[in-house]
Amino acid sequence: MSDFGTTVVGPDPLAPWRSPLGRALHRNRSQPHSRYVQLATLADGRPSNRTVVFRGFYDGSNTLMFVTDTRSAKVADLSPGAWGELCWYFTQTREQFRLAGAITLVTADTVHWGLIQARQHRWEALSAASRQSFYWPPPGDLRAEDTAFAIPAEAVAVSTPPPTFGLVLLQPDWVDHLELRGNPQTRTQYQRQSDGGWQVMAVNP
Amino acid sequence: MSDFGTTVVGPDPLAPWRSPLGRALHRNRSQPHSRYVQLATLADGRPSNRTVVFRGFYDGSNTLMFVTDTRSAKVADLSPGAWGELCWYFTQTREQFRLAGAITLVTADTVHWGLIQARQHRWEALSAASRQSFYWPPPGDLRAEDTAFAIPAEAVAVSTPPPTFGLVLLQPDWVDHLELRGNPQTRTQYQRQSDGGWQVMAVNP
Repeated sequence: MSDFGTTVVGPDPLAPWRSPLGRALHRNRSQPHSRYVQLATLADGRPSNRTVVFRGFYDGSNTLMFVTDTRSAKVADLSPGAWGELCWYFTQTREQFRLAGAITLVTADTVHWGLIQARQHRWEALSAASRQSFYWPPPGDLRAEDTAFAIPAEAVAVSTPPPTFGLVLLQPDWVDHLELRGNPQTRTQYQRQSDGGWQVMAVNP
Repeated sequence: MSDFGTTVVGPDPLAPWRSPLGRALHRNRSQPHSRYVQLATLADGRPSNRTVVFRGFYDGSNTLMFVTDTRSAKVADLSPGAWGELCWYFTQTREQFRLAGAITLVTADTVHWGLIQARQHRWEALSAASRQSFYWPPPGDLRAEDTAFAIPAEAVAVSTPPPTFGLVLLQPDWVDHLELRGNPQTRTQYQRQSDGGWQVMAVNP
């Protein structure tokens, strides 16, 4: 389970995998797709997998943030206690991070003050083009007419996020970092301990 | 379930998603990572996600091939009847394919003649460097000494694949193709029918 059910999260000490992940983000920053990551969840007992955009860490914590349309199929997969695994491949430096952990979905109904603020701030940071999609016809439904996608600029220039706007948090419990460069490759695993600390292990690639 | 349990697969008619996927592979071919794809499976009831390398289609069929080390954690996830979902993002053309379907693991114990041949051919097609990893100490174990990774070239120049060499097949049942270029984006879903045909639907992005 995520910490968000019972306690206010953060500030946490920086987890030991944050430094290599931060370095990878920096070294691959010239490529916009370096912030694209694949999120696997469970849907009716089967794995489901899609690309999401990394939106930074939740205030002072090691928890990753993404945004989603609450009408999308993945939201049905994100009931309380849901688990997810991110697979993040950096094409320039040729390294992969896998991050597994509890998922929290933050919506207009969320009552946690810090999470309400985080959702608000992520909405404010979105471009007008990105905001538009939250006013489009429901994702995955039979294709609507083109006119249904013409959202006036004024409509999205609101400071309150629409109910379709969700924030997805993933709090890693286990991280696997594989660097393909080098022979043999370098692989490091990080396991969160019950006291909140991390065990770090060099393992075979 | 996969077809491989009971029948010999292929040649199949080309599925309607093969043409857009082939086009994406062609247009992104200058980037080696265009053949890297994220495979989600289930591990002890939780989603698991890692990058695999696309190795082509199984003889005359719409089934995708990957190779794996049979000692890796994902093999434990690939019991008969296992399901997987691939998420394939093409960075150059900015499009995503999600492909969900039954997974078949082909090992030294497999008795299906076509699959034995496919495994043999994939081994023959591997570079010496890629072959070496199948002789390394078990993936995920505590890091062994460097000398354990020094595999002589002669050792891997064998025509018979070692027992650690596995072939992973994924036979898509459902495909979702999202093209990010354009506003609104284009999204098409393909659903396999019980007669083996495909239903094609334009859906909202």
